[in-house]
Amino acid sequence: MDSLISHIASNSTSGAAEILRLAGEAFSQLRVHQTALGQGSIERAQQAILETAIALVRAQPDMSPLLRLASVAISAASTETNPQDALKSAEEHALKFVASANRSVRTAALHAADLIHPGTTVMTHSRSSTVLTAFVEARLEGKDFSVVATESRPGLEGRTLAEELAREDISISLIADSSASLAMDDVDVVLVGADTITQEELVNKIGTRTMALAARERGLPFYAVCDTSKFINADYWCRPVRYKKSSNLPGPDARAEALAINRFFEPTPLAHFTGIITEDGVLSTEEASGRAERASIHKQLSEALERLRPQIR
Amino acid sequence: MDSLISHIASNSTSGAAEILRLAGEAFSQLRVHQTALGQGSIERAQQAILETAIALVRAQPDMSPLLRLASVAISAASTETNPQDALKSAEEHALKFVASANRSVRTAALHAADLIHPGTTVMTHSRSSTVLTAFVEARLEGKDFSVVATESRPGLEGRTLAEELAREDISISLIADSSASLAMDDVDVVLVGADTITQEELVNKIGTRTMALAARERGLPFYAVCDTSKFINADYWCRPVRYKKSSNLPGPDARAEALAINRFFEPTPLAHFTGIITEDGVLSTEEASGRAERASIHKQLSEALERLRPQIR
Repeated sequence: MDSLISHIASNSTSGAAEILRLAGEAFSQLRVHQTALGQGSIERAQQAILETAIALVRAQPDMSPLLRLASVAISAASTETNPQDALKSAEEHALKFVASANRSVRTAALHAADLIHPGTTVMTHSRSSTVLTAFVEARLEGKDFSVVATESRPGLEGRTLAEELAREDISISLIADSSASLAMDDVDVVLVGADTITQEELVNKIGTRTMALAARERGLPFYAVCDTSKFINADYWCRPVRYKKSSNLPGPDARAEALAINRFFEPTPLAHFTGIITEDGVLSTEEASGRAERASIHKQLSEALERLRPQIR
Repeated sequence: MDSLISHIASNSTSGAAEILRLAGEAFSQLRVHQTALGQGSIERAQQAILETAIALVRAQPDMSPLLRLASVAISAASTETNPQDALKSAEEHALKFVASANRSVRTAALHAADLIHPGTTVMTHSRSSTVLTAFVEARLEGKDFSVVATESRPGLEGRTLAEELAREDISISLIADSSASLAMDDVDVVLVGADTITQEELVNKIGTRTMALAARERGLPFYAVCDTSKFINADYWCRPVRYKKSSNLPGPDARAEALAINRFFEPTPLAHFTGIITEDGVLSTEEASGRAERASIHKQLSEALERLRPQIR
């Protein structure tokens, strides 16, 4: 179990799907482990589930679907009276959450592909695997369209996306992030991914906010696509970790005594979007906000995380 | 003369000051050359002045102060009746324009330095020598302030600026262009340069427009600084050349068959600025627009350029 949590914590390259799969496995391991220890009390089982949930969230504190999954496991166990049933229910609900999120991502991508028509030019930013799936799906449907991608400094994820799209025979041009507004002269729609959606904001790769402002100035439709496992009622959480600075990662650098500051995520007001594309189709920003409000975290988990906050931040 | 024009045409690294100095010298060479040929008609002298003006503009068609200088020389010659007087007047007015522009740049930079107070954090974009002069001047005045500079892809001029500021003992941090909005959390004022100001727009390095939108969203003051030789009544001119694409210069690149498109300049509506700082102090955007309207180009020059347009673009 500890090695699985460490693996999740040190995993900075996998997407949400892989991290969620590992988190589901953590609840399977927990059940096996606790069963091997023999029958304890229901309180002890529920405590073990809570501790696993907390360990998972601490391993990737920025990942909202993980927080949702952890919360689901605790909720499921909370209504059981027998320790084995509690462990089993936590595992089942965690695995169901993972499977559902995977299906939802794919369905959301298919809905996003509907935005893309023959001849459309789509601008995107950074590299969202859901956006990539939407592009590939639209191409498989035989549509001939073009993508304009920002190179997405500091991480340069746009270059990776460009290679992937070129391999799929999708027409792709790569621009500097700063060129987004001018390049919009030739663009029909902007489509980006999302890492978290709260009642008021969408958190995504740095640069999303200025791209939203540029699209709004030009009257261009600006959509985000993600499954609803990324929606979260985040009154107490998220921001400080997600927007953290780093000066030792690839990105801006200078030879003199200039301090290079890399930041990777930023919030964009939901109201800046034309709509949010999910497995349930295109949500208005008001609907998305309402969904996020209802995506609350189990009280035991949120209180525990609140107490740990100084250690996590 | 031809070699001087070639030198101007091939000069892609010098700033406006050096290009203007060479353009002034072209009118000196013209006078010496025509005088050596002996006395011709006034029409012939005026024609030689017009041809020199056209050659200069064609050498650097994007540079509005050069167009202004060329126009000034033609205007000066147009009221003379003697060929030697026409050549002398064109030279004198050209050299006076150069000297005046140089003084004005420095005065504008001093006015911009007034915006910078002890403790201020200023954001800038790309590398404007006028903005650099403002920073250095503020530091010489003993003010302790910080600069946040974008690295300014695709040309990375921000890195050069960062090195220059670090050498001047100015606190400097360097961010990716896409970080501008989030970094504005810690910024008091944004100050950029300008390459051209028309009645409606300010042309500057790519990325200026989204930075303006981000500043406006946050209510941050957003100033440009330049001398008024960059103001121009550009009804007929400028845009297509300045915003040209290039795919073979340093900048975004990809290993697959993605097309990298580098664009270097873009227009930002004047109304997006808080004010334009010139040698005459801070102009409102309405005042700046009026100045640009009055900065017209001599009819003979504009008509000649209009005829040459297909060749120049």
